[in-house]
Amino acid sequence: MFKRLCIIGLGLIGGSIARAARQQGLCAEIVALGHAQNLPHLQRAVELGVIDRFYTDAAEALHNADCVIIATPVGAMRSVFQQIAPYWQADCIYSDAGSTKGSVVAAAEAVFTQVPANFVPAHPIAGAERSGVEASQADLFKQRRLILTPLAHTDPLAIQALTQFWTQLGSSVSLMTVEHHDTVLAATSHLPHILAFALVGLLGHKDEQREIFKYAAGGFKDFSRIASSDPTMWLDICLANKHELLPLIRQYQAELSTIEQLLAEDQSEQLFANFTYARNARQRFLDQLDD
Amino acid sequence: MFKRLCIIGLGLIGGSIARAARQQGLCAEIVALGHAQNLPHLQRAVELGVIDRFYTDAAEALHNADCVIIATPVGAMRSVFQQIAPYWQADCIYSDAGSTKGSVVAAAEAVFTQVPANFVPAHPIAGAERSGVEASQADLFKQRRLILTPLAHTDPLAIQALTQFWTQLGSSVSLMTVEHHDTVLAATSHLPHILAFALVGLLGHKDEQREIFKYAAGGFKDFSRIASSDPTMWLDICLANKHELLPLIRQYQAELSTIEQLLAEDQSEQLFANFTYARNARQRFLDQLDD
Repeated sequence: MFKRLCIIGLGLIGGSIARAARQQGLCAEIVALGHAQNLPHLQRAVELGVIDRFYTDAAEALHNADCVIIATPVGAMRSVFQQIAPYWQADCIYSDAGSTKGSVVAAAEAVFTQVPANFVPAHPIAGAERSGVEASQADLFKQRRLILTPLAHTDPLAIQALTQFWTQLGSSVSLMTVEHHDTVLAATSHLPHILAFALVGLLGHKDEQREIFKYAAGGFKDFSRIASSDPTMWLDICLANKHELLPLIRQYQAELSTIEQLLAEDQSEQLFANFTYARNARQRFLDQLDD
Repeated sequence: MFKRLCIIGLGLIGGSIARAARQQGLCAEIVALGHAQNLPHLQRAVELGVIDRFYTDAAEALHNADCVIIATPVGAMRSVFQQIAPYWQADCIYSDAGSTKGSVVAAAEAVFTQVPANFVPAHPIAGAERSGVEASQADLFKQRRLILTPLAHTDPLAIQALTQFWTQLGSSVSLMTVEHHDTVLAATSHLPHILAFALVGLLGHKDEQREIFKYAAGGFKDFSRIASSDPTMWLDICLANKHELLPLIRQYQAELSTIEQLLAEDQSEQLFANFTYARNARQRFLDQLDD
């Protein structure tokens, strides 16, 4: 399907895209563009068979590439666009895998003035708490959602090619606006990460004074899993989507204050109604997962 | 080990105690005491082989029992103590499985003035989001912690017998004070449940207006799992331990406000330090789990 796929940012997501594309036979050649300081890491990716070869020179890496996917933390996208802009080709399809889309579009606009028509912003809703190319896996995107957020002038053929590509990696592809994406993901992903980091931070300090983790069980383990996510990546995401995230944090504080007050006043009926509403809402979420 | 084990409150926990005790051959006979309105439920437990028989009359259920375990929601413990007080026997061991211990001790004091020496407050740190005897399983307590919170005058032989009993169910038994238990569990269990109920409640209302659950992934699924817990049980726990829980909710609000402010002010370094601290703290928790 592609002659040469070039991955920029070969971590968990970039590595998994490479592995999955190879497994599905979608690319004749898979290369990576990386920094000289990441040499051992890039060499390891070749040894693992994740990529065919790597380059530290953008001109060489992008030469003859017909698909380029940027899978760096979102905070690095602007400098990546700057790096690859001189070699931008009209007959190549460009995309990314960032968890925020408004910031990626803004980074492209800062470099290109107008976002190139052959760049399709994308977000695979998949991940794991482990990071790095060694944690990458070919089935990471199977039965997951992939969101494309094309702009009005984005090339329909590029959208179509990426839809086919991700569908063959096993994902279910949805299209939505950049704004809708960032609103939805702030609620379902970014806010939960903030809440988990805050809880594990609070409890970590308590644990240092008096052991408490020893008596934490499965519920805490699952609840806190996302607090093991990569801090660099999540710092980037939170900063990139802060305009959506900040109002949500405040709404959450209000929700928590309501529960706090109901509890302080022993308002059992209303508390029971709140807990029951939440339990039923989660069931609605689970029912959709099974679809 | 016991001639007749009587379970009061045959839900997930009570049913799992019965199944595990039977599997380990620890009781010649396992019976339950229940309410007449739960007849179909109790009959089902007999059909499933979870218990040998059940009674709705306390005198009959407790006759010849040498171990009684109360596994009702903690809010029902006082009425259970009232119900069984007339048949309390000196040569029987009594315990419970409540998630809060101060409230259980207070309920016992309200009925008996002094907590009987042969009552040992206990808390198996195990559970599942499903509830009811049909969800019970013999291995629920394997490789889990069981906390006993005996009082100064609790009979050492009763403590020893329950330690042996729970060890044979596969649990690792710890002893601590009632107060320490309630402080630790408020942080590692009760607060996370409140946070999960609050998040899923907030997002549930958003989902009703504009679909968002459709795009939620594995991170949200794990984070929100405990919001599927039984609302009745958790209302009881939160009310029973509110004096520990309320200050913690306020500390959490302060932690969240700190993150909100750092984010609003783009204080990247401090945010990165907070996320990294949390990630490392969770690793410390995971390392203890593996021990």
